[in-house]
Amino acid sequence: MSSEVATDLQAFLRDHDERIHEELFDFLRIPSVSAKAEHNGDTKRAAEWVKASLEKIGITARIYPTAGHPVVVGEWRNAPDAPTVLIYGHYDVQPAEPLDLWTSPPFEPTVRDGKIFARGSVDDKGQLFLHIKALEAHLATRGKLPVNVVVIAEGEEEVGSEHLARFVADQKQLLRADAVVISDSAMFAPGLPSILSSLRGLAYFEINVEGPSSDLHSGSYGGAIVNPAMALARILATFHDENGHIAIPGFYDKVREWDPRIREQMRSLPYSDKNLIEETSVDALGGERGYTTLEKLWIRPTCEVNGLLSGYTGEGAKTVLPAKAMAKVSCRLVPDQDPAEIEKLLKAHIAKVAPKGVTVRVETLHGGQPWRAELNGPIYDAARTALRAAFGKEPVITGEGGSIPVVGDFEKILGAPVVLVGFGLPGENAHAPDEWMSDENFRVGMRAMAMLWDEYAKNGKR
Amino acid sequence: MSSEVATDLQAFLRDHDERIHEELFDFLRIPSVSAKAEHNGDTKRAAEWVKASLEKIGITARIYPTAGHPVVVGEWRNAPDAPTVLIYGHYDVQPAEPLDLWTSPPFEPTVRDGKIFARGSVDDKGQLFLHIKALEAHLATRGKLPVNVVVIAEGEEEVGSEHLARFVADQKQLLRADAVVISDSAMFAPGLPSILSSLRGLAYFEINVEGPSSDLHSGSYGGAIVNPAMALARILATFHDENGHIAIPGFYDKVREWDPRIREQMRSLPYSDKNLIEETSVDALGGERGYTTLEKLWIRPTCEVNGLLSGYTGEGAKTVLPAKAMAKVSCRLVPDQDPAEIEKLLKAHIAKVAPKGVTVRVETLHGGQPWRAELNGPIYDAARTALRAAFGKEPVITGEGGSIPVVGDFEKILGAPVVLVGFGLPGENAHAPDEWMSDENFRVGMRAMAMLWDEYAKNGKR
Repeated sequence: MSSEVATDLQAFLRDHDERIHEELFDFLRIPSVSAKAEHNGDTKRAAEWVKASLEKIGITARIYPTAGHPVVVGEWRNAPDAPTVLIYGHYDVQPAEPLDLWTSPPFEPTVRDGKIFARGSVDDKGQLFLHIKALEAHLATRGKLPVNVVVIAEGEEEVGSEHLARFVADQKQLLRADAVVISDSAMFAPGLPSILSSLRGLAYFEINVEGPSSDLHSGSYGGAIVNPAMALARILATFHDENGHIAIPGFYDKVREWDPRIREQMRSLPYSDKNLIEETSVDALGGERGYTTLEKLWIRPTCEVNGLLSGYTGEGAKTVLPAKAMAKVSCRLVPDQDPAEIEKLLKAHIAKVAPKGVTVRVETLHGGQPWRAELNGPIYDAARTALRAAFGKEPVITGEGGSIPVVGDFEKILGAPVVLVGFGLPGENAHAPDEWMSDENFRVGMRAMAMLWDEYAKNGKR
Repeated sequence: MSSEVATDLQAFLRDHDERIHEELFDFLRIPSVSAKAEHNGDTKRAAEWVKASLEKIGITARIYPTAGHPVVVGEWRNAPDAPTVLIYGHYDVQPAEPLDLWTSPPFEPTVRDGKIFARGSVDDKGQLFLHIKALEAHLATRGKLPVNVVVIAEGEEEVGSEHLARFVADQKQLLRADAVVISDSAMFAPGLPSILSSLRGLAYFEINVEGPSSDLHSGSYGGAIVNPAMALARILATFHDENGHIAIPGFYDKVREWDPRIREQMRSLPYSDKNLIEETSVDALGGERGYTTLEKLWIRPTCEVNGLLSGYTGEGAKTVLPAKAMAKVSCRLVPDQDPAEIEKLLKAHIAKVAPKGVTVRVETLHGGQPWRAELNGPIYDAARTALRAAFGKEPVITGEGGSIPVVGDFEKILGAPVVLVGFGLPGENAHAPDEWMSDENFRVGMRAMAMLWDEYAKNGKR
């Protein structure tokens, strides 16, 4: 059994493939758009659907209300000496608009070219559901699970998981586990199983530069009054040096060096700048000199302008010397940078470079810690073995430039390592029209996750 | 007569002071707001009022329609050997809104503390009308004028004088003159008669920096894709050096040195930075090192950001890497800078400093030539003498940081020097609620302009 998915589990999943797809399509038909109050009934219905699908396979489940959309928790703790895993997913989906860009309606699942098209197919209903079906394979064929399992499905992931950290903290006892497994990400390439090794953190600021008390005539006052928009541009221009390094003193002080083997492995991924250039329609890439594109995206911090506003922005010419100028600026952080420290460094730097004649205010809008996986231990060993067996290929270590705050919350509150193993694919349109999930990945994912619990049970807690 | 206003003219203006004020108030009661179509009837009425007021004193007048508001031209050419002067003014006014900030209604002229409060009192009905009354003093007391006179009053000054340059070119023969006198500006300080020596020109651009084909997630793409907003900031930051000099190569090449005597005279004006700091509520002034504030405002070119727009500018945090960024940028120009040349220099500079990975487009939105008065010749000598006599003080030479395109048009098309001699005052609220004109300046202005024609006749054309 060590290098193949157990035949009984394989057989069950194969024999019930049609029914499993029918159930998935039922789930996908519920327009559980968490961002829109008009869909509150649908979101509730999706939570009930998840609860029922857990109970149907023999897992005790309950719906927990929050100040927002409810959380569904399923529990099966009948393997006293085995480790416990918490599986996280979300049943809410992004809005489907613009509807006219969908080839088939977003809430009428359709398979074309081996892809399951539907809003939520890959983000995240399909990936949550494949876990439930992997558990069913065990329970149906053997009457039990090899490990203890808690399934938690939230309904607010697409609107910022506002109430989840609090729920996890309040329900720490209910959710206790030795490892957390999350399938809400993508594989690096088709056929290449992937384990996410890191997420970047975030420190998001609004910078306001204030000059004269009101907009002035640029002819009558221009030349003697410091222009807040020009002052802002000059401040922003000090954030990087000529090589794309961030020039805010102390910015890199806490950056932990990456394991050279991980960097080496990342460099060997089948990646080409050409694809990114074509995807984004730019004529060249940029960023920090001395790093590969994947390193720039995954393991190096950034400082980006997210928005600019000042003075007259309508059609034509208006000769105004603006009273103020605003920039939204955010830094993506890597371990062990800390949003609060970055805030201090940025404020100190701005205070030093801001010219006389304007007042600069820096307000922190949002912060999130960076995260890096340990990549070692029983759950990681089990995941590698299961993925290798199911996909017939050694899993690769990837990174993610974005932030998923709940990962850090689980790790901190539950004290358990988190494994991010996703079955999406590049180009899956997760937040866009024509979202799809590879039907092949859905099937192989079920097999891999079914095998994962056998392997994890073998490895034990530590 | 050489150093005093002729007694007959003085006596006439004094004796008819009440009637003259009544007439002015009639003029000010017409809400001739050129920007608002609902006032088109009022604007037409104001043109007719000006025509009638010219005819009443013995000047032939006619209303010329344009594609916009009409132009009124009055003509008196019965002094065959004397020079001819063209007097320009405008009968249209700025909108009066916000009405609730007016102490007395904008179109009910009221005198308080020696100030005539009304929309258009100083800009420009009061200043146009004082010229008509100065002419009346001559015609009523002596039955003739010492010089030939053309009066031109337009109705579109507050909306950009869109049709005036064309009208002047088309009616070059009708408007032929040896000198142009315009009273539509302010004196430097109360009691200090002022002649404007210069206007700055304008070169106004929109700069668009384009990166990826759509907004991207700043987590997933940040670090490898060149950020258009940051690129724009870095481009703008190259426009000045650390001393506030404009660092666009070649920018100052055509700047003509100012007459050291004029600069010396400007430095002796009763001016304090403190007032400007208080007026604009800034904590310090800025600009080009090595020049006084008045020099920065009047005789040095600028490069200002008038507007900025990029990415997300709403409330809170949105982690977007913007697809594009826009800046409105305008340069105030001084003789002999040329808007078209500045455009070339700016484009060449941007092409050099723009990073790879973004495309920068520079579009010219507006341009205007700078202007400098010769300050010599018979009309200037006459103006100095008349102002000195009427105000009892030597007139000062001032500058203006803004642009009045019609001045250059008159000079170029008619081949005649332009004298800008205004009777407004600082704080007159020309485009704001509670606009006022000093009643004293209205009276002294009439006397000065009445004397001007005697003096100009004495000096002759050259």
